Amino acid sequence: MYTLYYAPATASMAVHLALLETGAPYELQLVDFEKNQQKDPAYLRLNPNGVVPTLVCDGKPYIETAALMMLLAERHPAAGLTGTPEQYDEWRQWMVYLSHNLQATYRFWFYPSELGYATHPDEVCHALQTRIEKIWDQLDQHLNAHGPYLLGAQFSVADLYLTLLMRWSRKMPHPATEWPALNHLVQLITNRPSWKKMMEIEGVDIWPEDKTV
Amino acid sequence: MYTLYYAPATASMAVHLALLETGAPYELQLVDFEKNQQKDPAYLRLNPNGVVPTLVCDGKPYIETAALMMLLAERHPAAGLTGTPEQYDEWRQWMVYLSHNLQATYRFWFYPSELGYATHPDEVCHALQTRIEKIWDQLDQHLNAHGPYLLGAQFSVADLYLTLLMRWSRKMPHPATEWPALNHLVQLITNRPSWKKMMEIEGVDIWPEDKTV
Repeated sequence: MYTLYYAPATASMAVHLALLETGAPYELQLVDFEKNQQKDPAYLRLNPNGVVPTLVCDGKPYIETAALMMLLAERHPAAGLTGTPEQYDEWRQWMVYLSHNLQATYRFWFYPSELGYATHPDEVCHALQTRIEKIWDQLDQHLNAHGPYLLGAQFSVADLYLTLLMRWSRKMPHPATEWPALNHLVQLITNRPSWKKMMEIEGVDIWPEDKTV
Repeated sequence: MYTLYYAPATASMAVHLALLETGAPYELQLVDFEKNQQKDPAYLRLNPNGVVPTLVCDGKPYIETAALMMLLAERHPAAGLTGTPEQYDEWRQWMVYLSHNLQATYRFWFYPSELGYATHPDEVCHALQTRIEKIWDQLDQHLNAHGPYLLGAQFSVADLYLTLLMRWSRKMPHPATEWPALNHLVQLITNRPSWKKMMEIEGVDIWPEDKTV
């Protein structure tokens, strides 16, 4: 049994998705950001960073989105979330790449206070946007040559993580869905039952928007 | 046989250290930053981020410092670099934590251009410094309660990674060595033969400085 400390529409969505893909039983525990519960002393004992997600597993709290997704993928091999054994090193590389380059940059994009600002000056906005778009360039090129998934024909939890991180760009000047191979991956992942169920449980707006309506 | 694309005194030191700890044969390939070789098209094909380290392993290039250290630790279990099997999830969490929180923040500290600046305005400097010092607080508290290593009595490659990242703070207003439990870990790691050998091969200044001379 797992307990996921989560807040809707945050990084915890990625771990929620992975949980649904494993089929393992889990409980959700809301961390109410409006009440600033992520900074409560009791929660900080579980997660000293004061962020979500935290996953309690065998009574022990674990943190870091990418690490939690890897933990679930490896504990539930039947769910096929790590790619093939031959792809293991590449799979781990993508998980670290997405955490280190993309998720870490978004932190500064969404929280100007982390850089000492109330709102970002234009040059900082532009630099962070450029940095994120370079990642879309790289990933789109990779998927175009080796896709449709990060591991080629083989779906893995890295695709869930990437899709979740792409969703965060939806209000940026150039959302990730403007890159064709990335957009194709978004279609594949958002049509999975796990994605639909997660969005429904968390009560999050449908994405990408259905433009046919 | 491994080939490590490296530049002295950069993040590649961490992978160099891990290689020495495994005892596996390896070759070093210098990426000359003074000649901007990290942006050469041939190198970008190995590492699209244009950074070091890159590790070629079985003829295939892999990137991301934390992922490379994990790859080496897992491929050479006899070297005892992953902690005990029971500690595996915690070990992975520390590797991701250091990459996502600490190494990613240093990138902005050392490269103001990533934020659109030639040099950081004071408020950005202060915010990044605060962010890094909060990590020292957290880690020092953890090591104080559960040390001397990140996994308690058990050394792992995460300690090499952390020590390397602590070295990067040596010219900051408050270097990590001002935190007692962190300083103790620095002493343990910098006295290992792998550390001494790596520093000698890369021709890097001794750290921490010997204050008894």
